[in-house]
Amino acid sequence: MKKKKVLIGVIGAGKCSKKVFSLAEEVGQEIAKAGAILVCGGLGGVMEGAAKGAKEAKGITIGILPGDQKEEANPYIDISIVTGIGEARNLVVVRSSDAIIALPGKYGTLSELSFAMKLDKPVIGISTWDISDKIAKAKDAKQAVELALDLTEKK
Amino acid sequence: MKKKKVLIGVIGAGKCSKKVFSLAEEVGQEIAKAGAILVCGGLGGVMEGAAKGAKEAKGITIGILPGDQKEEANPYIDISIVTGIGEARNLVVVRSSDAIIALPGKYGTLSELSFAMKLDKPVIGISTWDISDKIAKAKDAKQAVELALDLTEKK
Amino acid sequence: MKKKKVLIGVIGAGKCSKKVFSLAEEVGQEIAKAGAILVCGGLGGVMEGAAKGAKEAKGITIGILPGDQKEEANPYIDISIVTGIGEARNLVVVRSSDAIIALPGKYGTLSELSFAMKLDKPVIGISTWDISDKIAKAKDAKQAVELALDLTEKK
Amino acid sequence: MKKKKVLIGVIGAGKCSKKVFSLAEEVGQEIAKAGAILVCGGLGGVMEGAAKGAKEAKGITIGILPGDQKEEANPYIDISIVTGIGEARNLVVVRSSDAIIALPGKYGTLSELSFAMKLDKPVIGISTWDISDKIAKAKDAKQAVELALDLTEKK
Repeated sequence: MKKKKVLIGVIGAGKCSKKVFSLAEEVGQEIAKAGAILVCGGLGGVMEGAAKGAKEAKGITIGILPGDQKEEANPYIDISIVTGIGEARNLVVVRSSDAIIALPGKYGTLSELSFAMKLDKPVIGISTWDISDKIAKAKDAKQAVELALDLTEKK
Repeated sequence: MKKKKVLIGVIGAGKCSKKVFSLAEEVGQEIAKAGAILVCGGLGGVMEGAAKGAKEAKGITIGILPGDQKEEANPYIDISIVTGIGEARNLVVVRSSDAIIALPGKYGTLSELSFAMKLDKPVIGISTWDISDKIAKAKDAKQAVELALDLTEKK
Repeated sequence: MKKKKVLIGVIGAGKCSKKVFSLAEEVGQEIAKAGAILVCGGLGGVMEGAAKGAKEAKGITIGILPGDQKEEANPYIDISIVTGIGEARNLVVVRSSDAIIALPGKYGTLSELSFAMKLDKPVIGISTWDISDKIAKAKDAKQAVELALDLTEKK
Repeated sequence: MKKKKVLIGVIGAGKCSKKVFSLAEEVGQEIAKAGAILVCGGLGGVMEGAAKGAKEAKGITIGILPGDQKEEANPYIDISIVTGIGEARNLVVVRSSDAIIALPGKYGTLSELSFAMKLDKPVIGISTWDISDKIAKAKDAKQAVELALDLTEKK
C-alpha cells in the first residue's frame, strides 16, 4: 500500500432481505473498485454482503468484531479486529471510517448513524433512517461510493 | 441498602436551556423521592440537573464518566465510575439502568435511545426523539418516574 | 451520603481457595467499617468474598461487570455497573478506585496491578504479585485498609 | 489478499532507546518479509519502530489507536483503527493478534503481556518481563518472528 487508502464504513442490519444483501454487495464492489478499503462490523447481513462484494472486486475488508473470537467474522473478512467490547465496537466502526454508507437497519444502525452525526462524519444513506439533512442521499451503490469519496476529500 | 434498589438512568443534552435543566432537576428529585438511584453520564446539562435534583431530595447519584479523571464529574455525583472509554460509556449508562428517562438532546441522546431500544430497555421520553412506539411518553417528571418504576417492575 | 465517600477497589482471582476467600471477606468488612465503598469486578472468588464481607459490615458494594446482564453479579453486589466491554472492565475497576487492595490472583490480577501502577494509583498488596516497590505490603486485612485510606488521603 | 494473513502484534514501550527502536524495526522487517501483517498500538517508541520496519520491507501495518483521531497514528501506519477507548485498546491489540512479540516496556507492556497469558495467546519475548514459562524467549528479531509463526500454526 503506497499511500493511505480511504476507509469506507458500511453499516446496516445484521439480518437482512436478499434485496438489501444484494445492495450491500454492490456497495462493497464499488468500494473495492474505487481502491478504498471496506470497514464493517464483520458479522452477517449487510456486513457480510458488503464484504462479499468487496472481495469479488479484489478489495481489502476489515471486520471490527464485537466478541472475543475472530472465528465469528464472516468468511469475506481479511482482517479481523477482535475488540471484545460488544456493541461498543459500533463506535469503533464509525470512528475508523473516513466516510460511512448506511443501508437499511434497525436500532443498531440508528445508533451508529447518530454517533456518526455527533462526530460530524460524512454519511451517505440509501433507504435508511432520515434523522438529519446532513445525511447525503444516494439512489444506488455507485452513487453512494462516489459521494463517500467526494465528501472524504473535502474533509 | 437493604434490598436491591432500582437504578434509573437519565439521558439528555450535555448543554441545555434553563427550562430543560429545571425539568432534569425535577426528574432527579422524583427519582430520589421514589427511593431509586440516579444513573447518568456524570457531566453537565441534563446530567447535572438530574444529579442536583436527586441530591436535593437526599438520593444517591452515580456518574458514569467518559474520561480518565473523576474530577470531570459534576458536583452532585456521589459515585464516579471512571470508564476511560469515551462515548462508549453511553452504552454503560443504558445497560446499567433498569429504566431510562430521556429528556431533550441531540445525536448523543439519540444514540443512547437507539441503543436502549435495541436492548429492549423500558424508556420514558419527555419531549425527546420519537423513534419508536415503545418509548412511553410522559407529560412531566412525576409521571416519567412513575412510569419508569411501573415498567421496571413488569420486567 | 453527605460527603464523597472513598472508593476502595479489591482485585484478585475469580476462583480462589477458602483461605483467600476469607481474607477477601475480612478486607470487605474492614472497608465497610471504615465507611468506604467497595468496588470490585462483581463476580466470584475474591470479588464475592470482599462483597460478602462488606455487606456483613453494612457497607455499600459496587460490581463493575464484564458482561451484558446484571444477573451475573454475585449476590452481595448492591449496585451493578453493566459494562458489556468484557475484560476491559478491569481498567474501569482500577480507574474508579481511589486505592486498590490486591489479593492473590493470576494473570487477570497481574494485568490490573500493572495498569494500576501505570496510572500511579495507590496499591496495597497481600500475598500478591511483587512487580514494584510502589506496591505497599500489608500483613492482614485491617492493615491493608488502613494503608489504603492513608495513601488516598495523601493523594 | 488471497488467503487470511497472519497478524502479529508487537508490544513494548511508547518511548524507548535507539537500541530498542532498532530492535523493533528489525522485528517489523521480519514480520513483513514473512508475509504477515503487523498489529500494534499505532503510537511511538516500539510501535513506531516496528511499523517503520514493516513498511521498509513493504508490509502492511495496522495501528489500534487509543484516542479519537487517526492523526495520532505514527507515519508508518497504513490502517488506523480509531478505538476511542483509551488504554483498553491494549486488549484489542492482544485479542486481534495471532501471536505477540513483546519487547522491553513498562507497566503498559506488562499489562498486555498478562492479558495475553490470560487469553493463552502465543507470546515471544525479547528482553522483556519474565512472568511465565509460557513466554517463549527469542534472542533476536528473526528468531522471534520464526517462533511467532510456528506457534501460530500449532494453534
